[in-house]
Amino acid sequence: MSTPSINSQRLWNSLMELAKIGATEKGGVRRLALSPLDGQARDLFIRWCKEAGCTVKVDGIGNIFARRAGKNGSLSPVITGSHIDTQPSGGKFDGNYGVMSGLEVVRTLNDNKIQTEAPIEVAVWTNEEGSRFTPVMMGSGVFIGAFPLDGTLQRADIDGVTVGQALKQIGYQGPEPVGGRPVGAYFEAHIEQGPILEDERKVLGVVVGALGLRWYDVAISGQDSHAGPTPMRLRKDSLIAASSVVLEVNAIAQRYQPDGRGTVGFMQVKPNSRNVVPGEVRLSVDLRHSDDGQLEKMEQEMRAAVERLAKAQNCSSTVERVANYPACKFDASCVSAVRSAAQKLGLSHMDIVSGAGHDAIYMARVCPTSMIFVPCEGGISHNEIENAKPEDLAAGCNVLLNVMLEKAKVVAS
Amino acid sequence: MSTPSINSQRLWNSLMELAKIGATEKGGVRRLALSPLDGQARDLFIRWCKEAGCTVKVDGIGNIFARRAGKNGSLSPVITGSHIDTQPSGGKFDGNYGVMSGLEVVRTLNDNKIQTEAPIEVAVWTNEEGSRFTPVMMGSGVFIGAFPLDGTLQRADIDGVTVGQALKQIGYQGPEPVGGRPVGAYFEAHIEQGPILEDERKVLGVVVGALGLRWYDVAISGQDSHAGPTPMRLRKDSLIAASSVVLEVNAIAQRYQPDGRGTVGFMQVKPNSRNVVPGEVRLSVDLRHSDDGQLEKMEQEMRAAVERLAKAQNCSSTVERVANYPACKFDASCVSAVRSAAQKLGLSHMDIVSGAGHDAIYMARVCPTSMIFVPCEGGISHNEIENAKPEDLAAGCNVLLNVMLEKAKVVAS
Repeated sequence: MSTPSINSQRLWNSLMELAKIGATEKGGVRRLALSPLDGQARDLFIRWCKEAGCTVKVDGIGNIFARRAGKNGSLSPVITGSHIDTQPSGGKFDGNYGVMSGLEVVRTLNDNKIQTEAPIEVAVWTNEEGSRFTPVMMGSGVFIGAFPLDGTLQRADIDGVTVGQALKQIGYQGPEPVGGRPVGAYFEAHIEQGPILEDERKVLGVVVGALGLRWYDVAISGQDSHAGPTPMRLRKDSLIAASSVVLEVNAIAQRYQPDGRGTVGFMQVKPNSRNVVPGEVRLSVDLRHSDDGQLEKMEQEMRAAVERLAKAQNCSSTVERVANYPACKFDASCVSAVRSAAQKLGLSHMDIVSGAGHDAIYMARVCPTSMIFVPCEGGISHNEIENAKPEDLAAGCNVLLNVMLEKAKVVAS
Repeated sequence: MSTPSINSQRLWNSLMELAKIGATEKGGVRRLALSPLDGQARDLFIRWCKEAGCTVKVDGIGNIFARRAGKNGSLSPVITGSHIDTQPSGGKFDGNYGVMSGLEVVRTLNDNKIQTEAPIEVAVWTNEEGSRFTPVMMGSGVFIGAFPLDGTLQRADIDGVTVGQALKQIGYQGPEPVGGRPVGAYFEAHIEQGPILEDERKVLGVVVGALGLRWYDVAISGQDSHAGPTPMRLRKDSLIAASSVVLEVNAIAQRYQPDGRGTVGFMQVKPNSRNVVPGEVRLSVDLRHSDDGQLEKMEQEMRAAVERLAKAQNCSSTVERVANYPACKFDASCVSAVRSAAQKLGLSHMDIVSGAGHDAIYMARVCPTSMIFVPCEGGISHNEIENAKPEDLAAGCNVLLNVMLEKAKVVAS
């Protein structure tokens, strides 16, 4: 039999209905992890899944798994999913698209009375964004054993409310054990959150892996001095040194194209007064690359540059690495399945490396995994104006349907 | 007769006594303009002046004038002075040194029974620092007509207390008209507040004028984007543009040596998150030069650089000039008097241009004026660790004594 198509309008309607929960005036969504609004969105998702004949289980960190039975209950499930918590000023598609695509796959299989050998599950991972509780990608992280359950339940938000308390408040600390069960494969559909597909005029991104990521805190110390009486040659201007570091971080990333990224996103200047030469600057450095060896070289170049550029202004400097996520390569057969589905559907596509973190990146540590990217308008995400075209969302969902069926295997009717 | 010397120990003791009012734990002084502590310091100054035989008058903006009569009451007074308000975390010498030096000159004349032809006055100018109420150099500014009295009395601090109310609270809104009377000459002794004298190993700075000053607000707008998924070539990174501006402001100042200054002291990055390419940066630019024509060229170069460097990052930019003080040249005969006194006293000295604002710069608009600088440790001022050597302070005060006598003329005994 030929694979049917998903219902594009139904997918869109579900996304728009879900987006009403926490809708903002500017067209975005504010639905922080484990807030009452998150609880309402979870309730809606579960109602839809039950209406679609799924059995729903919730684990001890609040991850939801809606299961469509396979013919062979002993096979490991093929899972898809994402998250429905949002950034404080988030959009309608980030995360939500992956979850609603999974639901749409189930609904399409129902419409077409397709039975699969392996069970299919649609997962909602708890707190992917990390805006209210850190760390990010909490639910999938506990699921795969990156963080312990007990310690994670004790993480508190800014008001002192813990993850465990918040889960109980919305009724989502479930009885199921977290993780520890085999997964046949994991796929996640997601908006790209970057401008590459749009720039390359492609509808579909075949995600081959994710950039390694390292974060650093840099401090540069000079000497406050009065901007008038202090001649240029006698200054210890930490902002000149910091500005040189910003440009050098950019130059390093340019030398490691196409996959290198270097960003200074945060800078704090002291005393930050217009007529005082700044005595101290703190700044962040974010380095990314698809190859950990190259990323290590970028780090070495950055460390040397900070020291050299600070000294050139008679300043001292420190560099502290505060995060280190290795690069991730997705499973070759899953990646190939995504690429083949795109080809079969006649979609313009390209291989792409995820620059951002996703639940799929943790899942890749325990099962064959890949992701499906679709374009978002202007590459803008984590923003209330985040937008995507219905036809692109449908294209990604059709690819998801194809790869889920390939891995879960259709029972011949 | 030969000119006597001031009493170095008495000068130092007066400075240390005055510094007790508002003393901070770290050895500095916090004595905001028109605060109760400022009132106590004014009371002490007036008591000392009256004990030295002066008559004291206070004008409508709170400026204090302690007058030592001359033989010829119809001659315009020769005035010296400075301020006794401090920065929020200020030192013991900024301003206070000029006022205590004036008092020490009066005391020395008394000790030596020297009568002058013209009267001598020691002035305390209200609110030079501008920390509590803006604008800076308020008292001297109203005195010379740069600001109207009524509007200035209505300036409010952060708690809504006006200058007029604060003056009344401490009992210093005096009956005398503000300004409008001839001044024979004005001299002001001050710590340098910069590192040049120390660096050049000179005891005395002959201040020939003050740098012109222009302040600008610069805004650079790009596009927020996620640091991971956004490739380098598709960014609109406002912080890269802003950092390039910081370096170019420095480069411009370097091209206009020795008197050019260029400083970015303030920078605000938005959204200022480590994994977001910054969409907006606001920064200040402070340009100074002793020659207004050169300063104009510096401004033109800076404006062109901001536009060019923003465009290079696909960002837009605006530059707004928010302050413009022309360069000031002090009166040739007053400058010459300072230089001659330093030579006569055998002090190592050099000509110097003031980079900071001082009450003397306003006074120079209405009467022959100059200043006398002495070194401060490490060039550090506006800081609780501000320090100066007793012998340097005494040297500056002896120069002040000499020039006051030259301009007020000693009555032959």
